[in-house]
Amino acid sequence: MTEKGLQDVVAAETRISDIDGERGKLWYVGYDIEDLARDSNFEEVVYLLHHLELPTRDQLDELNEFLVSEREPSPFLVSLMPTLAQQTSPMSMLRTSVSAASAYDPDGWEHTPEANYRKAMRLVAKTPALIAMYHRMRTGQETVPPNPKLPHAANFLWMLLGEEPDPELADALDVSLVLYADHTMNASTFTARVIASTLSDMFSAITGAIAALKGPLHGGANEEAMKMLEEVADPARAEAYVKDKLARKERIMGFGHRVYRHVEDPRARILRELSRRIGERVGDLRWWEISRAIEEVVLREKGLYPNVDFYVASLYHCLGIPHDLMTPVFAMARMAGWTAHVREQYADNRIIRPDSEYIGPRDRTYVPIDERG
Amino acid sequence: MTEKGLQDVVAAETRISDIDGERGKLWYVGYDIEDLARDSNFEEVVYLLHHLELPTRDQLDELNEFLVSEREPSPFLVSLMPTLAQQTSPMSMLRTSVSAASAYDPDGWEHTPEANYRKAMRLVAKTPALIAMYHRMRTGQETVPPNPKLPHAANFLWMLLGEEPDPELADALDVSLVLYADHTMNASTFTARVIASTLSDMFSAITGAIAALKGPLHGGANEEAMKMLEEVADPARAEAYVKDKLARKERIMGFGHRVYRHVEDPRARILRELSRRIGERVGDLRWWEISRAIEEVVLREKGLYPNVDFYVASLYHCLGIPHDLMTPVFAMARMAGWTAHVREQYADNRIIRPDSEYIGPRDRTYVPIDERG
Repeated sequence: MTEKGLQDVVAAETRISDIDGERGKLWYVGYDIEDLARDSNFEEVVYLLHHLELPTRDQLDELNEFLVSEREPSPFLVSLMPTLAQQTSPMSMLRTSVSAASAYDPDGWEHTPEANYRKAMRLVAKTPALIAMYHRMRTGQETVPPNPKLPHAANFLWMLLGEEPDPELADALDVSLVLYADHTMNASTFTARVIASTLSDMFSAITGAIAALKGPLHGGANEEAMKMLEEVADPARAEAYVKDKLARKERIMGFGHRVYRHVEDPRARILRELSRRIGERVGDLRWWEISRAIEEVVLREKGLYPNVDFYVASLYHCLGIPHDLMTPVFAMARMAGWTAHVREQYADNRIIRPDSEYIGPRDRTYVPIDERG
Repeated sequence: MTEKGLQDVVAAETRISDIDGERGKLWYVGYDIEDLARDSNFEEVVYLLHHLELPTRDQLDELNEFLVSEREPSPFLVSLMPTLAQQTSPMSMLRTSVSAASAYDPDGWEHTPEANYRKAMRLVAKTPALIAMYHRMRTGQETVPPNPKLPHAANFLWMLLGEEPDPELADALDVSLVLYADHTMNASTFTARVIASTLSDMFSAITGAIAALKGPLHGGANEEAMKMLEEVADPARAEAYVKDKLARKERIMGFGHRVYRHVEDPRARILRELSRRIGERVGDLRWWEISRAIEEVVLREKGLYPNVDFYVASLYHCLGIPHDLMTPVFAMARMAGWTAHVREQYADNRIIRPDSEYIGPRDRTYVPIDERG
């Protein structure tokens, strides 16, 4: 029997995250995503996903110190970036940069749990700089060195935009990183685990995860949702826009989810409110109002709820994140979950090698080339 | 039920290749691998895997012309290579180079079957140059431009070694490329199909495949087998070496296969004879004799047959291929199968997203950091 798409096939056991698609719940290591979004922060969640416990103050300080010390990419990556910034899409840049970073990791080919933890934390620490550097270079601006006083999310906005961010905006980005940090066995996380299952290295596994997230059926939805908001441009036009799309049987980006079928994605609920608050804060509620209007029509007409990507679009727009960097920022957050899943795979590994079913011609006879018809 | 490793789970239907593990048979599109190894060649097999038919003379000429015209990597890759040659292992170099190559593909983001076919053929055409250039640079030798008069395998030896190869050696490499070109749903091919299933691009899928092949449980076996031949060093020492390994419960590299459990891998049979012939040709039968001696002891003591990687080691050694390039040469051949599988996935796609089973703690209460024990 062919399990096309492997739907409902259990490919691994995990202690990292869990979803109840019927009740619309998501937990990281047993903690409700709503509690983590309200009370925790990205660095703490990074610790949680890797250690399966929340950190004490000392443990969190130690992690923060390491992350802050590892924010700068290697000189080789700095030397590649002008060409990548000129020639390559943001996700291709990230895929190539993470692959190239392997050559400069201080732990080299060490494959102990400790070395792989450090490699993971370096990837988490450096990804914001890669995205920010890329954007500054392609727009002809000076790059901005990391600011060791700022936490992960705030430092990214600092390096991207070149000014110290409003703390409320930095907090909003931080919450979105918490929400994006893991989501059980999606296609990119599964890719990372398949690669890790050959005992290939951390950089190989994460390069593959980025390659999968790049696909429009997976990571591109927040950017596509933003394109839709721009096309609609006015809340009053949402109804006509959606009905027209549906009449042409086109998909509305940012709605529906394979896992949350009949309930709202719990992350969408948090992001809806966050997007409104940040829209008010920056004095631009238009994108939120367009989003609300679209949401109402899609729910009424199709019974579909928004997913995590939908309200990220208006939120990230108000934070000043360029639209084609929305998927790379997703990758920056998911780096926490990907690397945790890779380490979990290494800890109890078996190579992942499914079967295929042959449905082509059989028992053909080789005919020399000049006798072929 | 958890299908750890997804063993016996059918993840896709395919028309590309088929294995009968009980009878020890492998077919590409219905043609027996033994017929193809004897009568066909790598370029023809590339055509077969992609078009599901053997080419006419005109069709093969057209493909050859395209492949020959696409052998040179882009100037960006040429500019990266000195750093990669100094800093990176061969498989990391290949992963980074293929990722970086996406920026310069003339078909850009075109995602038609025709554009993806051209991207595939460019990857097939350029991989030999990447490996050869890397090796020439790391050993301080001038790089060698491709020779348009030579077929794929011979041109690789020319670019690697800087002299026109003995046709018998070039033919032997060509046969090994035919044998390595595809093997149904192994871990790297599966990785490529998972990435393609998000509708991510050809370069992303192949970058992930290389990342998976890099793992010691998958592509590294030919190189490991060569290390063993060097350790044994003398056929008379094979028996003691193998028995000692087995006594310490260590694995003998290049033996046994998840698919061919009780019969010989049909590719090993062909390669055993080829390795002997080439050993004789270059006047160095020692590696073949060591291999035979090891094979006899392993069969007698463990009932295990050699797999495709075992006789590739002595063969490639006699062809002058540096030991750490044996896995990249495997990748150079498998590029044909990987790209064919990616195109097959695109043609009838559903996102590949299995489930995971959560086995961690549940319903935990978030405690503020300074109250944690």
